[in-house]
Amino acid sequence: MTPEELKALIRTIPDFPKTGIQFRDITTLLGHGPGFAATVEWLAGEVEGAEAVAGMEARGFIFGAAVAARLCLPFLPIRKPGKLPCRVIGVDYELEYGLDRLEMDPGSVASGQRVAIVDDLLATGGTALAAAELLRLAGASVDRAAFVIDLPDLGGKDRLAHEGVVVRALMQFAGH
Amino acid sequence: MTPEELKALIRTIPDFPKTGIQFRDITTLLGHGPGFAATVEWLAGEVEGAEAVAGMEARGFIFGAAVAARLCLPFLPIRKPGKLPCRVIGVDYELEYGLDRLEMDPGSVASGQRVAIVDDLLATGGTALAAAELLRLAGASVDRAAFVIDLPDLGGKDRLAHEGVVVRALMQFAGH
Repeated sequence: MTPEELKALIRTIPDFPKTGIQFRDITTLLGHGPGFAATVEWLAGEVEGAEAVAGMEARGFIFGAAVAARLCLPFLPIRKPGKLPCRVIGVDYELEYGLDRLEMDPGSVASGQRVAIVDDLLATGGTALAAAELLRLAGASVDRAAFVIDLPDLGGKDRLAHEGVVVRALMQFAGH
Repeated sequence: MTPEELKALIRTIPDFPKTGIQFRDITTLLGHGPGFAATVEWLAGEVEGAEAVAGMEARGFIFGAAVAARLCLPFLPIRKPGKLPCRVIGVDYELEYGLDRLEMDPGSVASGQRVAIVDDLLATGGTALAAAELLRLAGASVDRAAFVIDLPDLGGKDRLAHEGVVVRALMQFAGH
């Protein structure tokens, strides 16, 4: 399937979660078997060469884990606070409406291990930057991230590039 | 890898989340690339013939999505309340410590579509039963579920069988 065909599988929900926001819904892409598999294949091609794949709870688990399994690589779940049963390290970061926190098991990464971040959507990049910071705290080397959707008007790609993370995205949507 | 080798990749954390509970932690299995891929392969073999795979937020996304992508099938995310941007249907169910709720997009399932449930761990079966009820409300046919871990002493397998759902699990752990 072409990127244009895959883009056509994304559903846009106007004014969600608030007026003026066009929510790009991946549920309809997931619901199309060949489309979902082709998306995983594209993401896997972009992170090939990495030694592990990290994904952020919860939607990032969907693509990250599928890509890791496809490439026979470790999958590192980056979780919301209080979910992991082991000793964790965490990073607090700002969201549009308040603070959030990501946590991971520092023992899940080897020193210098090349970890790629995979997620569904890149907006301002806040979550991905926090994930990169967290993975680096744990000793990983993070130099690339692959997304299904990029919202280029929100500047996430440039923010990640500034921190040394090269971004690839399967499709772009203009606007917020 | 053999089931015994995969079982050896599970980390047991004593007294989490409370005294007397042996928490079976899949993070260490996910962190082993070939082990994770072999687990996905085993689960995929168990649900082959299904027309879609459903997974429950959040850990169920990890295995469910990887299995769906492997089989080129639709992945149906079953989510915690308030996460989906579309019209949803929901089912409330009892947890050990209170109530919880699962939601899904009823438009993501075709009438009579054969959907398999994939999750990391089967304990009492409460979450899986609620997921099966929800999928059936949406029109799906649910006759099988595949898990990485079964805790047979908690009876989930029998409860699911009683509702017409055949359970397969890659490994068992005795006790709670």
